[in-house]
Amino acid sequence: MRHTVVFTLRHEEGSAEAEAFLAALRSLAAIDGVQELEVVREVSPKNDYRLGVAMEFTDHAAYDAYSAHPDHVAFVRERWDADVADFLEIDFVAL
Amino acid sequence: MRHTVVFTLRHEEGSAEAEAFLAALRSLAAIDGVQELEVVREVSPKNDYRLGVAMEFTDHAAYDAYSAHPDHVAFVRERWDADVADFLEIDFVAL
Repeated sequence: MRHTVVFTLRHEEGSAEAEAFLAALRSLAAIDGVQELEVVREVSPKNDYRLGVAMEFTDHAAYDAYSAHPDHVAFVRERWDADVADFLEIDFVAL
Repeated sequence: MRHTVVFTLRHEEGSAEAEAFLAALRSLAAIDGVQELEVVREVSPKNDYRLGVAMEFTDHAAYDAYSAHPDHVAFVRERWDADVADFLEIDFVAL
């Protein structure tokens, strides 16, 4: 399963706050089950999101374990909810 | 650049119309510059899109050439606009 979130920060690009957020986001790669985490720039003029994060899980159970992991829960509470202005989650599996 | 479109069809899953659309969508892989095209299922309960298509381009110019290619233009006119109820385009590049 490929878990993707497109989002826009409340902070200016390149600001200390934005860089601290991105560093915290990248640190989620250390959580069990997270594979190939990448933080990317969103460039389509057809939506308003400016950044993205994508990661792979072997299956939906691995994603659920990540989602419930204390380090992820703390990240959402302390960083995501404070720093992200808008977002959309997209999850892909084989058709 | 990774070009992704999440979408929902006007047709029932598994219908002849849906299968014909997906076959036409997969045939876009034959257009110059399209790499690693995959059609996938969207499973997040947090959005209303039910399918996705993703592909890689070496750069934005390659994407623009694909977008303007007659086979792509014909697909959008004859298939996409008729068969897709809702969609969102997302384009990722390295940060």
